[in-house]
Amino acid sequence: MQEFRNISVVLVQTSHPGNIGAAARAMKNMGLSRLILVNPAEFPSGVAVGRAAGAVNVLESAAVVDSLPEAVADCGLVIGASARSRRIPWPMLSPEQTAQQVAAECNSSAVALVFGREDSGLNNEELQLCNYHVQIPTNPDYSSLNLAAAVMVLCYELHKVSLSIEETTLDTYHDWDQDIATGEQVEHFYQHLERVMVAIDFHDPENPRQLMQRMRRLFSRIRIDVMEMNILRGILTNIEYNISKRDK
Amino acid sequence: MQEFRNISVVLVQTSHPGNIGAAARAMKNMGLSRLILVNPAEFPSGVAVGRAAGAVNVLESAAVVDSLPEAVADCGLVIGASARSRRIPWPMLSPEQTAQQVAAECNSSAVALVFGREDSGLNNEELQLCNYHVQIPTNPDYSSLNLAAAVMVLCYELHKVSLSIEETTLDTYHDWDQDIATGEQVEHFYQHLERVMVAIDFHDPENPRQLMQRMRRLFSRIRIDVMEMNILRGILTNIEYNISKRDK
Repeated sequence: MQEFRNISVVLVQTSHPGNIGAAARAMKNMGLSRLILVNPAEFPSGVAVGRAAGAVNVLESAAVVDSLPEAVADCGLVIGASARSRRIPWPMLSPEQTAQQVAAECNSSAVALVFGREDSGLNNEELQLCNYHVQIPTNPDYSSLNLAAAVMVLCYELHKVSLSIEETTLDTYHDWDQDIATGEQVEHFYQHLERVMVAIDFHDPENPRQLMQRMRRLFSRIRIDVMEMNILRGILTNIEYNISKRDK
Repeated sequence: MQEFRNISVVLVQTSHPGNIGAAARAMKNMGLSRLILVNPAEFPSGVAVGRAAGAVNVLESAAVVDSLPEAVADCGLVIGASARSRRIPWPMLSPEQTAQQVAAECNSSAVALVFGREDSGLNNEELQLCNYHVQIPTNPDYSSLNLAAAVMVLCYELHKVSLSIEETTLDTYHDWDQDIATGEQVEHFYQHLERVMVAIDFHDPENPRQLMQRMRRLFSRIRIDVMEMNILRGILTNIEYNISKRDK
């Protein structure tokens, strides 16, 4: 995993200290640590510490500054979160595009992700300090995101990009505790299953209808592992044994 | 944009009502509205309403139930958030894969996204009620996500898929010849299976080892349809009948 050390999250005039704490937690969850607060209403704050949970160190090392220009002074790439479309349109990125752009530039220059006030976002002057705007896609009927939720979404996309530099998608059966059964083992299971279904008078090979097809369709939808196969075969064997006692 | 109406977010034993409100807000931001609360510590709650902001209607229409089986009784696909790797690994999806899977099945059956307690997540029994687990990729040094942040990430991925989907998308079980069995029907099957395994001396409930867990993991990977369920129940019934003759 590539680490993104050169990236700051900048929160402008946050009203509620709980949101600062929750943003710090989201950042640390996703591997970020540089937090800059522009004129927070209340900081330091016990409420922020409570919401930060295990990310108190992010709060403790946060910088507090007076203006956005000061916060982004050393940054080569500034991306501002914007809910609304503006009179003068700005280059607009999706969260994924933002993550790609940040990954592409953060080794050569400092990067800031800027988030505005809870109620009114970033003002026009602040938005014009940004190279790009980013808009998180939302339900058009209710697009007002909680501040920390917006921070989470962008940090999450960034973290995914950092991981994808290695490998993106999880293999569903990776780390499985057993080998997957071979086709031959599965065929033997079907034969055994059919014998038992005949023995318990559930299945008439002279009038099979679609029974075996349905059983094959059922079990073929999963990758049965070797231990599961052994359990199923064991169950079938015990059924046969118990039925043989019936016949004596 | 395709709307996802058939999807519930299920929160199990949430301690902090603020998290319920924040989860409701995240849901509505991303176009979801069905919230189910399993034994919440405090609900209804003014704190939840405050954090829900414009999503109070999601709280007002939330269902409150006593157990996870009750919450997912009508669901054909249940995906549970899991932070840890388990002794018996379960099919594991990334958030994107989860969104794809949900999109592929939510037209043919009800879907539940299940989130556990703030401190301890879902217990093993609850995790075994799920067809898949989903793990949100995090910083390995601090992987404990806020509950509402986890809800946001999954709802956000779902919303992205809903935006990218045209009406032509393939639904895995669309055109299937049978309805998918509900969670309740599948639970009855497990109970029947366990009785039969005891009757054939394959299973000792006093010394269960991991047998039922492994059977649940196996069958939960298949989305069993109603006819398949009837066949399996029929097989179990015939086994019981044949064994009763043994005992005479």
